[in-house]
Amino acid sequence: MTRRSGRRPGASGTRESIRAAAGHQFAELGFDRTSMRSIAAEAGVDPGLVAHFFGTKHELFVDVVDLPFDPQQVVPVIFAGDREHIGRRLADFLLTTLDDPEGRRRITGLVRAAASEPEAARMVRELITRQVFARIIDALGVDDADLRASLVGSQVVGLVMARHIVGVEPLASLSAERAAALIAPNLQRYLTGPLDAD
Amino acid sequence: MTRRSGRRPGASGTRESIRAAAGHQFAELGFDRTSMRSIAAEAGVDPGLVAHFFGTKHELFVDVVDLPFDPQQVVPVIFAGDREHIGRRLADFLLTTLDDPEGRRRITGLVRAAASEPEAARMVRELITRQVFARIIDALGVDDADLRASLVGSQVVGLVMARHIVGVEPLASLSAERAAALIAPNLQRYLTGPLDAD
Repeated sequence: MTRRSGRRPGASGTRESIRAAAGHQFAELGFDRTSMRSIAAEAGVDPGLVAHFFGTKHELFVDVVDLPFDPQQVVPVIFAGDREHIGRRLADFLLTTLDDPEGRRRITGLVRAAASEPEAARMVRELITRQVFARIIDALGVDDADLRASLVGSQVVGLVMARHIVGVEPLASLSAERAAALIAPNLQRYLTGPLDAD
Repeated sequence: MTRRSGRRPGASGTRESIRAAAGHQFAELGFDRTSMRSIAAEAGVDPGLVAHFFGTKHELFVDVVDLPFDPQQVVPVIFAGDREHIGRRLADFLLTTLDDPEGRRRITGLVRAAASEPEAARMVRELITRQVFARIIDALGVDDADLRASLVGSQVVGLVMARHIVGVEPLASLSAERAAALIAPNLQRYLTGPLDAD
């Protein structure tokens, strides 16, 4: 909706304009080529306001590059049920999210951003570590939970790359259900299996 | 490709100049922003010569974006030994290759290229499919070998992303040996395990 009231939008309207411009530019240009100034220009606000509301470009990136789900809601549900099927529940959730166009767009956007530039990689790492891994570690409640979470992360990001970004067949064409069934036991080992048995 | 009789003495030097310029530009600019013309300019040759020697930009990319090992040598060795330790041999080879600066540079370059643009992704997919997966499928010699190879691919690309591009801890700081030991059983299941048991 275009608004032409002759007054500046209120603070919350300004924040949302900035977030929308930032989200668009980070996705289109990548982190390095997006500037506070270019975001301000697209949002039609003074560059000082961007810093005023969001702090640094780093903080703005973390604010706008969002997961398509709330980990605070999702992680406890996946980890609360019986322990021997966490891998399957996690795989089902992941593949279902990736089957939805908006979920897929956001997750592949995060993976692409992480692969593009070291600075963006650092931010995606922080986002995932704080928002997702911290909760998985908490839910697992074992000594090596951080290692297990990072191993799960390696399979998850690899699945997104292989299935949705590179399009490796036949993995890319499988139904979400079948793909989930195939990776579930591997996620399960990383989460609860003996890690050092060979 | 037909070759005219009376080959010019400078042909192999020219080919190498073009390959070097192309390798440099694909890595620096990505696939889309590199042109046959810009490669010719850097190599100091006529643009027509680039097409003459390499065909399309696509074919040139596939020619210069190389793996840091020869799959024809490596795959048979990894797959020839006892079947229950293929995962471990593959993991050891992979982590050792990634521990070497040149090997790491080339492999992370391939993964970054694949994540950056759909066109580059298609080319990396072709390279990996033809050069690596075809040999793995051949060596495994089972009906669902193509699916197994693509699942292995998902774990391998994810490991490269998590350990070397995003830098997820503690996975990123583990020794190559320990990281290999951790992922080996998961590679093993994808290669030889029951895929649909859950």
